[in-house]
Amino acid sequence: VSLTDEFGLIRRLTSGGQAFLQQQQASGGVKVGIGDDAAVVEVNAGTEWVLTCDTMTEEIHFKAITMRDEDIGYKAMASAVSDVAAMGGTPRFAMISITVPKIWSAERLERVYQGLYACAHRWNVAVVGGDTTSSAGGLTISVSVIGEVEAGRALLRSGAKPGDAVFVTGPLGGSAAGLDFLLRQELPSADWTEQEEGVARLVQAHCRPDPQVEAGRLLQLSGLCHSLNDVSDGLASEAWELAEASDVGIDLIEERIRITDELYRYANEVKKDPLDYILYGGEDYQLLGTADAARITELQLRFREAGLVLDVIGYVTPAPAGVRLVRDDGTVARIEKKGYNHFSSSRG
Amino acid sequence: VSLTDEFGLIRRLTSGGQAFLQQQQASGGVKVGIGDDAAVVEVNAGTEWVLTCDTMTEEIHFKAITMRDEDIGYKAMASAVSDVAAMGGTPRFAMISITVPKIWSAERLERVYQGLYACAHRWNVAVVGGDTTSSAGGLTISVSVIGEVEAGRALLRSGAKPGDAVFVTGPLGGSAAGLDFLLRQELPSADWTEQEEGVARLVQAHCRPDPQVEAGRLLQLSGLCHSLNDVSDGLASEAWELAEASDVGIDLIEERIRITDELYRYANEVKKDPLDYILYGGEDYQLLGTADAARITELQLRFREAGLVLDVIGYVTPAPAGVRLVRDDGTVARIEKKGYNHFSSSRG
Repeated sequence: VSLTDEFGLIRRLTSGGQAFLQQQQASGGVKVGIGDDAAVVEVNAGTEWVLTCDTMTEEIHFKAITMRDEDIGYKAMASAVSDVAAMGGTPRFAMISITVPKIWSAERLERVYQGLYACAHRWNVAVVGGDTTSSAGGLTISVSVIGEVEAGRALLRSGAKPGDAVFVTGPLGGSAAGLDFLLRQELPSADWTEQEEGVARLVQAHCRPDPQVEAGRLLQLSGLCHSLNDVSDGLASEAWELAEASDVGIDLIEERIRITDELYRYANEVKKDPLDYILYGGEDYQLLGTADAARITELQLRFREAGLVLDVIGYVTPAPAGVRLVRDDGTVARIEKKGYNHFSSSRG
Repeated sequence: VSLTDEFGLIRRLTSGGQAFLQQQQASGGVKVGIGDDAAVVEVNAGTEWVLTCDTMTEEIHFKAITMRDEDIGYKAMASAVSDVAAMGGTPRFAMISITVPKIWSAERLERVYQGLYACAHRWNVAVVGGDTTSSAGGLTISVSVIGEVEAGRALLRSGAKPGDAVFVTGPLGGSAAGLDFLLRQELPSADWTEQEEGVARLVQAHCRPDPQVEAGRLLQLSGLCHSLNDVSDGLASEAWELAEASDVGIDLIEERIRITDELYRYANEVKKDPLDYILYGGEDYQLLGTADAARITELQLRFREAGLVLDVIGYVTPAPAGVRLVRDDGTVARIEKKGYNHFSSSRG
């Protein structure tokens, strides 16, 4: 996640130093600076490195009632790993900075670390450093991940072309629905694994998301992927990011958007439209991208062979159209640009 | 600063995953993992990268009454850059993660960024990414810096040999005395530049420290430096770190330790021993190291030619002696291992 995504005001803050930054980036081996999922810097003729930094803050990104300590750690690492996946890179090294509330026990902090290491282990990331400080406030975890990518081949947000197929690497909306369940429950989340299977899957999507590293690599190596982003802020917001970075429009086709059984049932139960979770929920960490439409079935076949999912959910249009939803009844509606607000959008 | 330095308990937390970490570090291109100023990872045959991550938290590392907003930003960047200098590396790229109190104005945040960018600019570091989140607590800034070093040539804490000369790249104690002044004053620090010149220099050492990048490079390129550390926690603590990492002892010679005029006068005024600020104060960010004693004058000459300082303040002894102070009266006293506690050690 880049500075410019987080706050409108950051755009202003950083624009003051923009000339300096551009000069630096041109001269200092910076291939992609602030503004994509991660930065890309030159290493040698064959390799570039992908640099990203992601922060999770108590009460903003998680609450004690929605996340177990080990889940908080796992998700913090997963979120940074996902930024590398969204560039088509292989995550290699991580540094962890934790600010821990003074009142916390060593056991709680240990569980956070267990989650961080479990996720690092899973994606073969070496934890090489970090910093732990205490604080009067809540828990803050900042994870920097460094990944590797073939020189000049990082997958940016800006490569989409009119006519491209728009794809996503798995189902969306589960994380936001899982959070919704946890918030409505108002019970500690320690026992979510004991919930009914469908609900447990939604909660798992929220608490232990899977960054799509293998899918990102497959897309990068295929040479068929034109643009890529990870879905941290909901489909609507991420589609707008691709569209604006590439100066194109995107039409999403409602009937192509996969709704899992568990999301369908849960949304019915709480009387919400499952598409709301998909469009305006967040933190699914699937990859959203565009690829050569003429060869998309070939790409889907490779995904199937690798045991992975590639759902085609729309197509790229010329820029003035913006991001739109082609509804099942044939009507076309412009999709709002609004992003994910952790503790408001998904509450009833 | 590494995880293991910060909290005793982190040692335990990380030792659980130690076998996994070691395996990873052996296989994954990690040359130096957690435990030195920074990690070192393999890039190609000629180059390695130095990775470090440093966090500053309000009320722990700074208070609004002791630091202007721009100083907080400057110092956060300086502290991470210093870790790269302490490995003999050249800082290249930075990522900034800020958790900002909800009640802050955009102007205050902008001043923090101005300080961060000013320091990055000074040391030619490209800011390539980051993350800004809001929080109910205080300000937290976490800076990751990536530097470059010739393969196999990073300067570690562990290379000191008995007989080595012990050196430091500039005067110590100024930062702690400056903090002491700011805390006693109990006035906003906005006007420290208007203080009497000597005091202003002490406060500047605290608020705008100079990481010793040039000195680190000179030491690294000389091939004469055996071990190196930056003085973030006071001379006593850092000398102990070198001694323990290298399995040697260190004798510091009191009369060789430079006391600046401003430190001498300030310590007199507040009736403290200037050596207390030097040994147990912190955040001077000078480099402390050891080098070949037979060629130390040659090294000092190179420093003088470059307009830099290299004070020889002691020598390396066999391990059982520990870290000692050879006093002006010829007596020898063991130096306590205690480190720097930001808001207690230097208060009267």
